[in-house]
This record gives sequence, structure tokens and C-alpha cells, in this order.
Amino acid sequence: MSQDAQSRARSLAAQSAKVVMGSFVDPKDDMVRERARASFSSDELAGYLNGGSEVLQKRKQLIALMGQYSWADKRQRYHMTREEEYRGGVQAMLGIWQLMKEEKITQEDALEVRKALSLPGGLELHIGMFMPALMSQATSEQQAEWLPKAMKLRIIGTYAQTELAHGTFVRGLQTTASYDRDSQEFVVNSPSDTSTKWWPGGLGKTATHIILMARLFNNGKDLGPHSFIMQIRDLDTHLPLPGIRVGDIGPKFGYNGVDNGFIKFDHVRIPLNNMMMRFAKMSPEGKYTAPPPQNAKASYSALVYVRATIVEEAGWYLARSVTIAVRYTAVRRQTAAVAGGRELQVLDYQNTAHSLLPLLSTAYALIFMGKTAMQRYHDFEAARSNGDFSMLPDLHFMLSGLKALGTTLVSDGAEACRRCCGGHGYSMPSGLPTLFASYVQNATWEGDNNVLYLQAARSMIKGLAAVRAGKPAEGTAAYLTNAWQELSSTSRASCARDWRQPPVLIDALRHRAARLGIRALEKLQAAGHDQLQFEGSAWNDNTVDFIRAARAHSAFNLMQNFAESVSAVSKEGSVSGPASRALQLLVSLFGMFTVLSDLGDFLEDRYITGPMAAQLREEYYAVMQEVRPDAVALVDSFGFEDYVLNSALGRYDGDVYTALLEDASNSRLNKTEEGPAWHDILKPVLTAKRPQAKL
Amino acid sequence: MSQDAQSRARSLAAQSAKVVMGSFVDPKDDMVRERARASFSSDELAGYLNGGSEVLQKRKQLIALMGQYSWADKRQRYHMTREEEYRGGVQAMLGIWQLMKEEKITQEDALEVRKALSLPGGLELHIGMFMPALMSQATSEQQAEWLPKAMKLRIIGTYAQTELAHGTFVRGLQTTASYDRDSQEFVVNSPSDTSTKWWPGGLGKTATHIILMARLFNNGKDLGPHSFIMQIRDLDTHLPLPGIRVGDIGPKFGYNGVDNGFIKFDHVRIPLNNMMMRFAKMSPEGKYTAPPPQNAKASYSALVYVRATIVEEAGWYLARSVTIAVRYTAVRRQTAAVAGGRELQVLDYQNTAHSLLPLLSTAYALIFMGKTAMQRYHDFEAARSNGDFSMLPDLHFMLSGLKALGTTLVSDGAEACRRCCGGHGYSMPSGLPTLFASYVQNATWEGDNNVLYLQAARSMIKGLAAVRAGKPAEGTAAYLTNAWQELSSTSRASCARDWRQPPVLIDALRHRAARLGIRALEKLQAAGHDQLQFEGSAWNDNTVDFIRAARAHSAFNLMQNFAESVSAVSKEGSVSGPASRALQLLVSLFGMFTVLSDLGDFLEDRYITGPMAAQLREEYYAVMQEVRPDAVALVDSFGFEDYVLNSALGRYDGDVYTALLEDASNSRLNKTEEGPAWHDILKPVLTAKRPQAKL
Repeated sequence: MSQDAQSRARSLAAQSAKVVMGSFVDPKDDMVRERARASFSSDELAGYLNGGSEVLQKRKQLIALMGQYSWADKRQRYHMTREEEYRGGVQAMLGIWQLMKEEKITQEDALEVRKALSLPGGLELHIGMFMPALMSQATSEQQAEWLPKAMKLRIIGTYAQTELAHGTFVRGLQTTASYDRDSQEFVVNSPSDTSTKWWPGGLGKTATHIILMARLFNNGKDLGPHSFIMQIRDLDTHLPLPGIRVGDIGPKFGYNGVDNGFIKFDHVRIPLNNMMMRFAKMSPEGKYTAPPPQNAKASYSALVYVRATIVEEAGWYLARSVTIAVRYTAVRRQTAAVAGGRELQVLDYQNTAHSLLPLLSTAYALIFMGKTAMQRYHDFEAARSNGDFSMLPDLHFMLSGLKALGTTLVSDGAEACRRCCGGHGYSMPSGLPTLFASYVQNATWEGDNNVLYLQAARSMIKGLAAVRAGKPAEGTAAYLTNAWQELSSTSRASCARDWRQPPVLIDALRHRAARLGIRALEKLQAAGHDQLQFEGSAWNDNTVDFIRAARAHSAFNLMQNFAESVSAVSKEGSVSGPASRALQLLVSLFGMFTVLSDLGDFLEDRYITGPMAAQLREEYYAVMQEVRPDAVALVDSFGFEDYVLNSALGRYDGDVYTALLEDASNSRLNKTEEGPAWHDILKPVLTAKRPQAKL
Repeated sequence: MSQDAQSRARSLAAQSAKVVMGSFVDPKDDMVRERARASFSSDELAGYLNGGSEVLQKRKQLIALMGQYSWADKRQRYHMTREEEYRGGVQAMLGIWQLMKEEKITQEDALEVRKALSLPGGLELHIGMFMPALMSQATSEQQAEWLPKAMKLRIIGTYAQTELAHGTFVRGLQTTASYDRDSQEFVVNSPSDTSTKWWPGGLGKTATHIILMARLFNNGKDLGPHSFIMQIRDLDTHLPLPGIRVGDIGPKFGYNGVDNGFIKFDHVRIPLNNMMMRFAKMSPEGKYTAPPPQNAKASYSALVYVRATIVEEAGWYLARSVTIAVRYTAVRRQTAAVAGGRELQVLDYQNTAHSLLPLLSTAYALIFMGKTAMQRYHDFEAARSNGDFSMLPDLHFMLSGLKALGTTLVSDGAEACRRCCGGHGYSMPSGLPTLFASYVQNATWEGDNNVLYLQAARSMIKGLAAVRAGKPAEGTAAYLTNAWQELSSTSRASCARDWRQPPVLIDALRHRAARLGIRALEKLQAAGHDQLQFEGSAWNDNTVDFIRAARAHSAFNLMQNFAESVSAVSKEGSVSGPASRALQLLVSLFGMFTVLSDLGDFLEDRYITGPMAAQLREEYYAVMQEVRPDAVALVDSFGFEDYVLNSALGRYDGDVYTALLEDASNSRLNKTEEGPAWHDILKPVLTAKRPQAKL
């Protein structure tokens, strides 16, 4: 091109550019404006939510420290193959172990690093299940033999319970351990393909040992599932031991850094001493001693602990998705009403706000619920150490329902956040697909959510049956003592603004829970006999209504706890006035949204009338608009560093388009200009000389 | 082990096996039993739904033919890297092209092959957008130049419209094409990072040409978006032409076989003749002729066509997920009430049936809707060829709402199906994660669902405003002529069984749509001025209620069409009595479920009273139980071959556990027994001799 033509091109394009770029707003500027309009200090609230500003400070230091290690580099995260993810996950965990040794970071800090990294790997169950199982189920002699090796990483373990054909129903496991008195060994065997152990994390290619759950047989008698420790790989070669077929089960929706594995046993002998004998016992002569009752309670406690941690973490996971979506929709502008005018921030379309702001309030509600749940678990633990298990049933009741409700809200919420981010939300570097796909397993594992709702429903129905028999309900179910009186109550909201009052909203949710609980009890009675039957067709044919009741109960728990926690924060002055007011508005928003989402439940028995419902809806829109100016500050208050979110759309500075462009350079398809299909696939066709070719 | 010990082990294990396997039911046997209990012939219904049994026969032949080609092998599908998926997608499309040449298969058959293959690749937009755009927007001279090359695959094209910062709002695109009269060329330029074209399929590494949408500037005047054809890569080397930066945007949630790409222009000159001049024109002297009005209508038609195809396919996608989930939950057994008793089929838990059977009915409703939508599109096309565009607005109205409703139902339904399959639903070989992640983009592309609902709401509100001004509403909106009379109506259901009647359900959905439509009109008027304003804050601040109205309208459309279609099938005797009765039951189930899902909408104005709602709910449970025995036959009737589903859980024969085990052998982590982390990562730690190592 001539010099002349070139400069003409530049000048023409510059003239056009002036027009097309004239009304464009830099996302970074939008972000600055959003922060300037906040009514409170997000630094202050972030400090409070995270347990003190020093915690955040510490995390920043840890992230800086991680910057020195290649295993902590997240830039390739969305571009890795399955093998790379797996290797990365193992490397990261060993890296953290190294940090503890060399940088002398504490165990607490190591947990922070692991959380910031978000790359689960082959050692998750070594830490989370194998060692805890040894500690709780092995005798002290057994612990002395195995624990030091596990702690020194001389062996790596996992926990093998689930089988191809059995998950929920542990009593139905098909792997057998038959005691051979002659040799004083157990014969571990998989009698069928369906008995293949399937799913244990780290089992595929990492673990050298497992805690095995197998049905113990003695003299032909089925003694039910018991746990054993078992070496499965040679410690020098890492090859499977004789009689063992073990491997990776293949890719999953998410969590692909973890080598979830399978294992099948062909008459493998293990010594008598490999049975975990803290509770159940087998003598060399084949005398079996059943575990005392507290064993059941102890393993119950372990279950409850895991659910408490899931509830504790739920809100923080939703907070990640919400942070990304709120920040992005606050800087994404689309569609101008007037030609050449400024386009509107996507968060300012009412339907976007309606999708995101209630989820923002849900994240807060769940975070406060998580704090309470963990506190209640610790209270129980303190009592348990004195042999007092009395808190266990109510804790189990509460956590079953909240695990189900919380993980459903977070899973569905994560996907809703993703869809609010339009096309870019479909891109891996947005971070949102990974958040959803890796989180959603929580709706299934550690008790499928429907199964857990049904456990909560059982407690609820038992409680109501007791009340009807004249006994008061207790603990989480205390409100059921007045359940039948609830039936005739109606909402006391007398004007639109009343709907902002947490007590009005809590009353509504309590009323619904009581009503649906009674309905569930009646259903079970109508279907069953005089005695309540929590199994068989009386139970199985009515699970929809039971789940409805349990869900209503848990929603009431969640709202009540949110309101009470925020009220306590205000009273104690844990945060200053403006932050406290912002939180109170979120309580109203959450309660109103929760009632509106299931409005039929309240209209059906006229607890709320049609005109009241219309007022509630309009007031909800009004509260949503009051929350809107604080939206970015409220997500800033979760305190996530950019490193933690690892999202092109969730960047603190709002520079989203630059981030997307930068990440694209990591695409494996961009390794060469021509791409991976050119030389052997496309070129022969595109440059073919045959004129007869046609599509 | 001694011979003696070995035989003792075998005998002990065999004794135990007898106990643990005693009550186990082979999934294959369950499947046989499920089919035996069906009330109608699934072969017959499958033939009808697929357009004739000869269509199914033909597809089986095509699948057999595909068995000879490695590009059609799906066994590694869930294990591929990004590069492999991309190469596979290109290879497959070239393979189909080869089939057409060598096996002389028809274009229709080629489409069947493409659908059965389900591996979108870099040539999707060459076929779906590039060639159609040339055909509709190029002059005949331009077509003569480009089309033959495109058809012979001498060039590969795509359609480049969306930019980093602009998707929905096409008028806001920032790429400019400035006419340089001196050289009779356009200067194509990207004035900013945000103007980078982003998302076009095949743009990354496959396309040599693009149809470019850019803002045309002439003499400094902005003439708005126009289309151009542009070569972007050298045909011999496949390297980008000067001034062009092009590449892949990186991995996405799904659709990773496609190289969605980006492209940025640095003052690139293209000849005058590269502007698509069928409608708008530019003379060499720089005289611009605006397109005549039918151009807008023509591009409108293209939009409408794409939406019609999305609606046509929606039900079939949901049918895939439902087939997998129903088959799996019919053979998956879990939990026995009595020790040693048979465990229950998971589909026999009421909550599972409640999750899946309404989705089964939704798939049928959408399939019938798709048939109608495509029929209506063809009617329009026939009229259009005579210059009659009068059907366009109503078709656009109908399809906007149905695209939004349909793709939301299918996306959410796919994920619900996945969760019903428990842990194994999280595994890639179940096929469910891929179905969800690759389908859910439909909720965003070709008009984000909220944007489309708002388009439908606009038509609805305009229709209602016309009615109020004394004019009758027409077409899809005809029912709105009586909208105000609807306000005072109540349901005529007088007993539980009435709720099975399609007219009772259709009336309810019509009533709701009319009520919410009027509410939307009132909202817009309250917020705006005398004139209705479909923009600005009067519009943007009330989008939640507008979307509610449009959704209600579309749900009414969907139910009405389902009932009418099935009624016509029965009257015409297109299927025999038993199949027709099964379909009628699905109509009832779908309608009842739809009303129950939004019960508050009907209770709020007491169209349905509380006691009626309770009857509806119980009747719904009863219908669900009547559908249950036909569940497997109803999914068999979709007619999917195992090759098409490619799902370990959705196998026709029910042999799900064998399928999972087989697929695991393809896991890349299983290439070696030791796994990819042993030699350089794990071994040094596990075999370290340093005694001071600790966790």
C-alpha cells in the first residue's frame, strides 16, 4: 500500500472510530463509580465476615508466597488436559506439604492455601477420610502402626465404600470379607462386577492403601458392613498387588484433578489385625464382638461433621459466583435507548437485578447459617467429649435439611449467575462453568439431597406425632409445639412496608413449615397403619409431600438464623451502622424473595391473600432497588482476591475484556497459527486440484 | 498361598457371595420387565414421532454405514483433549462430505448422520451461516464468484458479527468499514480491543473467509451495520493475511469441538465488490443506496428461521436426557425395606417420578410444538415467495417466546435428569454432563432468553393496547381479544378428575396469560407516558413483570398446541388406541404439572381456590402413577439408538454397570498402571529415605 493510501486509511478509520467509540464507557470507570456510590465500607464488612481483617491480611501474604511456586500458578487452569489436572492436583498438595515443612506455615494456613488454590487432587481423601477414619476407628495399636506412615506420606490412603451398584444403601454393599479362622485372615472378594468399588477419590492412581468397607462374614453369618485397612499397591513400584484390579473411573462433569477410582478383589487375603477394631472385634478364634451402641453414634457424628462443613462452605461458594456475575453485569453495558447514547449497565435491567440480588442475599444468609452450624457442631463436640450425645439427633435433623437446601440453592444459583453473564459466562475463563460443574456434586454426595430431605422429614413427622401425643417438640423443631394452632393463623402484614419486617417474613415461613409438616404426617397416616411407617409404600409413595415439608422447615431455619444473626451483629456493634443497615436490607430481600418464590404455598390456605401478595411483590421490587447501589460493595465484602476467583469476568478492577483477550493466548489451539487440523486434515481438501469435488 | 488355603478362600467367599448377591436383580431383567408392562407399542409410536418407521430404518442403516469410519467412532468421546475434539469435529464434517460424494448419500441423510454424530466442529457456520448469508445477501454476480468455491470447500467461511463488548445490541458494533472513494475500497478496522470480533464458530483456526458485520462509514457518515465478505487467511499456507490477528478464544463449558474465534483488523483494505450488495448498495463514486424495507424483513426471516429450528430441536434434546434418566432409574435399585429383600427401583420413589415424568411429558409437548412451529415457518415461506410477509410478525412473536421457554425447559430439565441419576449421572460416560453443557448455550445465543421474552412481551402488550382501543387481537394473540373478560373468570373444575381435562388446564393457562398481560400493560402505562414506551426506564425497570407475562403466554401456547396435536393424532388415527391414550395422559400430566409449578399465579386472584388446588395436586399424583408403567415404553418411543445417546446409563438393554466398567478402560489416566504422577512426583516422596519428613 502506498504511503498516501496508508495515511488516508488511518484518517478515515480514525474519523469512524470517533463515532463508534464516542459513547463507550470503559468498564474500569464503571467499577470505580460503582464503588463510589456504596453506602458502607466493604473493607469493614469483609473483615467481619472473614473473621477479622488480619485473616484477610494473612491470606494476601499467603497468596503472595504462593506466587513463588509453579504449582500454584492458575493461569493455565482452564486449558489443562485431564492428565495435567491430575498431576497438578498431586503436585499442589505435595507443594503445600513442602510449604509446611520449609516455610513453617501452620496447618490453618495450609488450609487457606488449599482453599485459595481450588484444585482438588488425589490426596483429598488421604487427609479428609483416611486419616480421620484411622483416628476414629482403629485401636491405639493400629494407629501406632499406620498413622505415622500416613502423616509422613510413606503411604497414601483413601476410603473405599461406594460400589458400582450401591451408594446410599450401605447395608446393601456386595464386597465381602470372610473370616478364615484356619489362617486367621480375612478373604476379601468382589463377587460380581456390580460389587466393584467405584468413586473413591485418589483410589485410581494415587492411593497405596484403603479403608475398605465390606460385609463381614463369620462362619457363614453376615455381620454387616465393617471397615478394614488394606494395602493395594506395592510401595516401591506402585503396581497393584496380586488379586487386585484398580484404576481411574474416567472423566467427570468436574473435579477432574481427582482420580476417582475403582477396585475389584479376587480372593485377597488380609491379616486379622487389618480389621478396624476400636469398636467391633474379632478374636483369632473367630469370636466376634459387636460394636457397642456409641459406635453408631460415633459414625453418625462423623457424618454430621461432614455435613456441617458442607453447610459452612455453601454460602462462600455461592458468593464466588455472585461476585463474578455482579461485577461483570455492573460493567457490561448493552443497548442504548437513543442512537449514540450510553448503553445501560446490564445490572440495571430489572430482570438481571431480580436474578442476582436475591442470590446475593442468599449467599449472605448461607454464610451466617454456616457460622451457626459450625458453632452448634462445636458445642456438640464439647458435650460429646464428656460422653454426652444428647445434642446429636437435633443437630442431625438440622444439618440434613440445610445440607440439602443449601447445596441446591448454591448449585442452581451458580448456574443462574452464569446465565446472567450471557455469552462470556459460557467461556471457561469466566470461571463460572467450573464453579458450577465442580460444586454441583455436593447435591449428590454425602447424602443425595432428596434422601437428606427425607431424613429431615422423618424427624419433623416424629416431632409432630409427639406433639399430638401431648409432648412438646424440642430444639430445631420447637416451633412445631404450636403447629396445630398455626393452621388457623394469617399473616399480620397490613401494608406493603410490613413485608420488610423480618418477623413478618419469619412468621410466614414458620406457618408454612408447620402446615406442610402436618400435611406430611397426615399423608403418612392415611397411607400406613396405626404405627408410623417410615419405609415401604406408605413412605415411598408420598415422598414429594415429605420433601416439601422438610424444605419448608429448612427455609424457615435459614431465614430465622439470618435475621437473628444480623440482629445480633447490629446489637453487638460488630460492624458500624451503615454496614449493619445494608445487611438488614438483605435480610428483608432474602425473606421476601423466599416467600415470593413459593407464593402458592402461602396463598393456598389464604395465610396471604391476593392483595397482600401484590403488595409484597411491589415492596420486593422496591427493596431490590434500594440494594442495587450497594451491589458491588456487597460482593467486595466477601473479600475474594482475584487469585482466588480466577475469573476474567470477576476481576476487581472491572477490566474484563482485556482479561478475556489475555486468556485466549493460552488456548491450546493457538499453539500454531495454522491450528491443529491444517496440515493433515484441512490442507489436502482446501488445496486439492480435483475439480469434481463438491459438498 | 497353598492349594488348600486357596480352595478354602474360594469356598468361604462363595458362601458369602450367595448371601450378598441373593436379592440382587440384574438390570437387564428389570428392563425386560419394564417393557413387558407397557400398554402400547413403542415401535409404532416411534415411527409416528420420527416421521415414519422407514425414517428410523434408514437411520439404522446410516449408523451401520458410519460404523466403517473412524471419524464416526464415539467410544473415545468423553476422553478427548480440546485439540482432539477440534480435529475430530473437522474430520467428521469432511467425512460426511466424503460420504455424500462416494456413497452418494442424500443431503437429508447427511443431516441425519451429522445429528447422530453430535460432534459440532469448525465447519458448522460454513454450512449454517456463511453459505446461507451469501445466498440471501449477495448479488447474483457475487454468488457466482463465491458460492461454487464454498460448495467445493475451496474456501471455508464463517459469520463474524458478535464482538467482545457487543452481542445483543448489533447497532452498537464497533468494527468499522470506511469507504475510501479514491481507491474504491473499504478500510476495515478494529478501533479498540473491545471491538475485537469474538465467538464466531470456526473462526479460530478453520475459516479462510468471513461474512463481516461492520458499521459502514461513507464521507464520515455512520450508515449502521452492513455485511461484507472478506478473506482472512492465505489459501496455501492458512496463515492470517496482513493486518489480521485471528485465533481461538479458548475452551468453553461445552461445544469444544468448535474453534470459536476472535479477529482484530488493523486497517485492512477490501475491494468495493466485497460489500454484500443485494439490498444496500455503494457505487464506485461513493453514492450509497439504503436497502429497501424488505431487506429488514428478509433478515428478520432468517432470524425467525433459526428460532424455528431451535424450537423444532428442543424437545428432541430433552428427550435424550429423559431417555437416559428414565432407563437408568428404572434399573437402578437402591434400599430395601426388609433386610435381604429386593431393593426398590429408584423410579418407584415418588420424588424421582415427580422429577422425571413431567419432564417426559415436557419433551413430548416440545416435540409436537416443534412440528407445528416448523409447519408454520413453511407456511410463511410459501407466502413469502409470493412477496407476502404478513405472517411474519405473529410468527416472530410466537417463536421468540417459545425459543425462550423451550430452551429453558430443556436446559433445566437436562440438569434435573442428571441429578436424578445420582453419582453416576456426574460421570461423563453417562452422557448427561455433555448434554447439559453443550445444550445450555441455547438459552443465550440467537437471542438471550430474557431478551426474547421481552420481545414477546412487547407484542403481547401492543396487542392488548389494540384490543383496548377496540381492535381484535389476531394470530397467536387472538385470545387476548377477551382478555378483560378473562379477569373475572374462575376455573370450572368441580372435582378432582376434572383436572385431567385438557380444556380445563388450557383455560387456566389462558386466564393467567391474559391476567399477567394486562398487568404488564398497566405497569408500562403507570411508568410511562400516554404513549407506550418500549425503552428507557419505563421499560427497563419493569422487565420482571413483562417476562412473567410472556412466559405465561408461551406456556399457554405450548399446552394448547400439545392438546390439539394429540387430539388430532387420535382423531386421524395416526397411532392406535393404546398409544393415543398414553399420549392423552401425557397431555394431562404436562398441563397439571405446568399449573402446579406456578400455583401462586392461579391462587393469587382466586381463579383456583385452595381446596381446588389440593384436588389438583392429588389428581396429579394419581396421573403420574398411571404414566409410570409406560415410562420406559414412552422413552423407547423417541427412537434413539444407543449410538446416538452414547450413554452408559441410557443403554437400551439396561446393562449399565458393564457399560461404566468398559468405558473406564478408556480413561487416559489408565494408560499405565502407575498413573501419570508416579515417576517424577509421587515416587520421590513415597520412597524418600529422610526420616524427618512430616505432613
